[in-house]
Amino acid sequence: MDTRPHVVIVGGGFGGIEAARALRRAPVRVTLIDRTNHHLFQPLLYQVAMAGLSPADIAAPIRHILHDVKNCDTLLGEVTAIDLAGRRLDVDRADGERSWVAFDFLVLAAGARTTWFGHDEWARSAVGLKDLDEAVEIRRRVLVAFEAAEAETDADARRRLLNFVVIGGGPTGVEVAGALAELGRFVLARDFRHVRAEELRVILLEGGPRLLPAFPERLSAYAAERLGRLGVEVRLGALVSDIRPDGVCVGEEHLPSATVVWAAGVGASPLTAGLGVPLDRAGRVIVAPDCSLPGHPHVFAIGDIAAYPHTDDGRPLPGVSPVALQQARFVARQIAADLQKKPRGRFRYLDKGSMATIGRSAAVAVIGRFAFTGLFAWLVWLAVHIFFLIGFRNRLMVLINWAWSYFTYNRGARLITGRRLHAGPPASWPHEHPPGP
Amino acid sequence: MDTRPHVVIVGGGFGGIEAARALRRAPVRVTLIDRTNHHLFQPLLYQVAMAGLSPADIAAPIRHILHDVKNCDTLLGEVTAIDLAGRRLDVDRADGERSWVAFDFLVLAAGARTTWFGHDEWARSAVGLKDLDEAVEIRRRVLVAFEAAEAETDADARRRLLNFVVIGGGPTGVEVAGALAELGRFVLARDFRHVRAEELRVILLEGGPRLLPAFPERLSAYAAERLGRLGVEVRLGALVSDIRPDGVCVGEEHLPSATVVWAAGVGASPLTAGLGVPLDRAGRVIVAPDCSLPGHPHVFAIGDIAAYPHTDDGRPLPGVSPVALQQARFVARQIAADLQKKPRGRFRYLDKGSMATIGRSAAVAVIGRFAFTGLFAWLVWLAVHIFFLIGFRNRLMVLINWAWSYFTYNRGARLITGRRLHAGPPASWPHEHPPGP
Repeated sequence: MDTRPHVVIVGGGFGGIEAARALRRAPVRVTLIDRTNHHLFQPLLYQVAMAGLSPADIAAPIRHILHDVKNCDTLLGEVTAIDLAGRRLDVDRADGERSWVAFDFLVLAAGARTTWFGHDEWARSAVGLKDLDEAVEIRRRVLVAFEAAEAETDADARRRLLNFVVIGGGPTGVEVAGALAELGRFVLARDFRHVRAEELRVILLEGGPRLLPAFPERLSAYAAERLGRLGVEVRLGALVSDIRPDGVCVGEEHLPSATVVWAAGVGASPLTAGLGVPLDRAGRVIVAPDCSLPGHPHVFAIGDIAAYPHTDDGRPLPGVSPVALQQARFVARQIAADLQKKPRGRFRYLDKGSMATIGRSAAVAVIGRFAFTGLFAWLVWLAVHIFFLIGFRNRLMVLINWAWSYFTYNRGARLITGRRLHAGPPASWPHEHPPGP
Repeated sequence: MDTRPHVVIVGGGFGGIEAARALRRAPVRVTLIDRTNHHLFQPLLYQVAMAGLSPADIAAPIRHILHDVKNCDTLLGEVTAIDLAGRRLDVDRADGERSWVAFDFLVLAAGARTTWFGHDEWARSAVGLKDLDEAVEIRRRVLVAFEAAEAETDADARRRLLNFVVIGGGPTGVEVAGALAELGRFVLARDFRHVRAEELRVILLEGGPRLLPAFPERLSAYAAERLGRLGVEVRLGALVSDIRPDGVCVGEEHLPSATVVWAAGVGASPLTAGLGVPLDRAGRVIVAPDCSLPGHPHVFAIGDIAAYPHTDDGRPLPGVSPVALQQARFVARQIAADLQKKPRGRFRYLDKGSMATIGRSAAVAVIGRFAFTGLFAWLVWLAVHIFFLIGFRNRLMVLINWAWSYFTYNRGARLITGRRLHAGPPASWPHEHPPGP
């Protein structure tokens, strides 16, 4: 019987993996639970949606990443309930059975998922971009829309197929819109006979007054200008009133479109709803200065599932991987401190910068007091992302894929999978199992 | 208005693609119709099922492969009916509409699909291996079974999860069984904590008296011996009486198994049923010596959808890509001859050899009068398959993937995708849309 304290980590994203690693020498046993078998390199997910990379290029088995962390078990399963008082989780396991898993410490790192700001019916028409299934579904819709337009002679139907609407002007929306314009332009021009690249329309809708609101204003203007050069129509102050299978309504205007990408709404995993602790508007757990849940010092929440209101400048932390990584290491230290009966500390975020890419060879980056644009920012972006991609093979594959598509203007993963043939949202989307931890 | 004769090709496999290429200088316009957007390199499909390669490594967009064949259009759509007398096809297109496509010549190259010898209910428990969806589903079931076994404490349930049954001792069955034994052994030993590699059981069932019946007997014996060394239980003369979600019945014996791969039955595309021409037992069109349909000289059938009974030695042609490629070139010449009012010829197959691989660094190959086994045969197999893989990127990717997995014993694409968590066959399998051309 193993008498070491049991630390359960829910979620195998950046925070969960890092927490398990940071606990490798602590006198505890660790179980990491995730409902998928893979860690996903989220920053490159848009590349899968745009047929530039394969799913396996940006995902590695959690069990493999942690195979040399000897005090850690990996469990494939979905956490369906958390009993904070009883210190146990209900887990729906891969063998089809459910069981209670007891814990001494709990680290919630289940991340975020697509949310619809109270308009869940929009999920039937648009696709978010938070997991591999969504990325592959976007890829399918984009490629099928091109194919359908090639055979379509009716002008209205053709316009709807060749209009692509991206909602949300943050980094994800900017990246998707830029990549979509490039994908369409080169692929349509080269491989299609009856669709001209000029017929493609990519519309990026942002509700606020500028793109990339978390970046300096100069970079927002640069991003809008670069996207314009790629042929993207950027519309600021555009409030979406409805999303339907035939298109998007912006105020009174109707934009016909078969393919709508939703990059506007992200909320915490639905797990938080049952905890009985205070949440913010996005469903995130409002944590104490030591990242624990108020009244439950042995339970922590890190990364996108947590709201941390205790920053020095009072501004919320961004939903990026460095926050999750730093919180993971901090929380591992607090658990070790508890076991040594030492006092806990207070989490402080060290901001190392942020960046977003805008198509081939252009990006924006903020590092400390410095803001960069253009090719240099893009090379920094490339280097950072390749460096942090987990696993040697993935890094090499991604580099080769990119070099190949950069020099040939080609796309390696233009694959329509699944047995559905028709353009637009299928009747079976979203799938019955919602994304979870 | 284009007045050139219209050649319609149904199917973008080896035969269909080659027919389009062979007609590039003929005074015809060509339309190639397929229900997927990609050409699939079938001989490596088992590598996708065994997590060695990604789907995009062995598939390339048909439209891209044919982009420099200027007289050829590509149409994504499913052929739902063929009106031979009216010389037209009914096509369910990607834009959701149906239309008739008229033809002057028709080349049926829609290939084969998994069949169940009258036991369609077995499709709910076992998975075939003829398209990417099936390969990804096998990968999912294998990887989830490992994960479920890791968390399972009940001995019977554990045995069922770790028993893998492969049905059919032809090249596909041999390749899957060998790769499965290797995948299980190395992955389980390295990344799992509570499953030992010795618990894995791979059982290969063959109804006849030897494996690889199309090969010389010496090679059959070699394959059985090599598989035995990898830990595969080879059972000859084993007739399957039932396949259920809990396992396989062989005569009176019940083999509990959550993962059953069906490599025993292949039949022609269901398209042939509505043609009103003679078919063989596997549903293949019995063609004339010039590969045309009896009574329909302007309609040809090539590759796995056709039965060609006019060989010099009276033996049927094997279901391999060289047959489809040679028939495609032959048929293109007959169409050109027709347009020049020249007489048609008679198809003759030039057998260049055949091969099958048995795990890492062992294979069997027959080339002319020579039979090879072992490492040399494996290197020949590797060289031939890499050489014929379409597209520079795919060749490079596959080589890198293989080199990596060869030297590290690792698997690059160990990805469980789709939102289903549990081991064994899901309720929604097979999907509503059956595989077609």
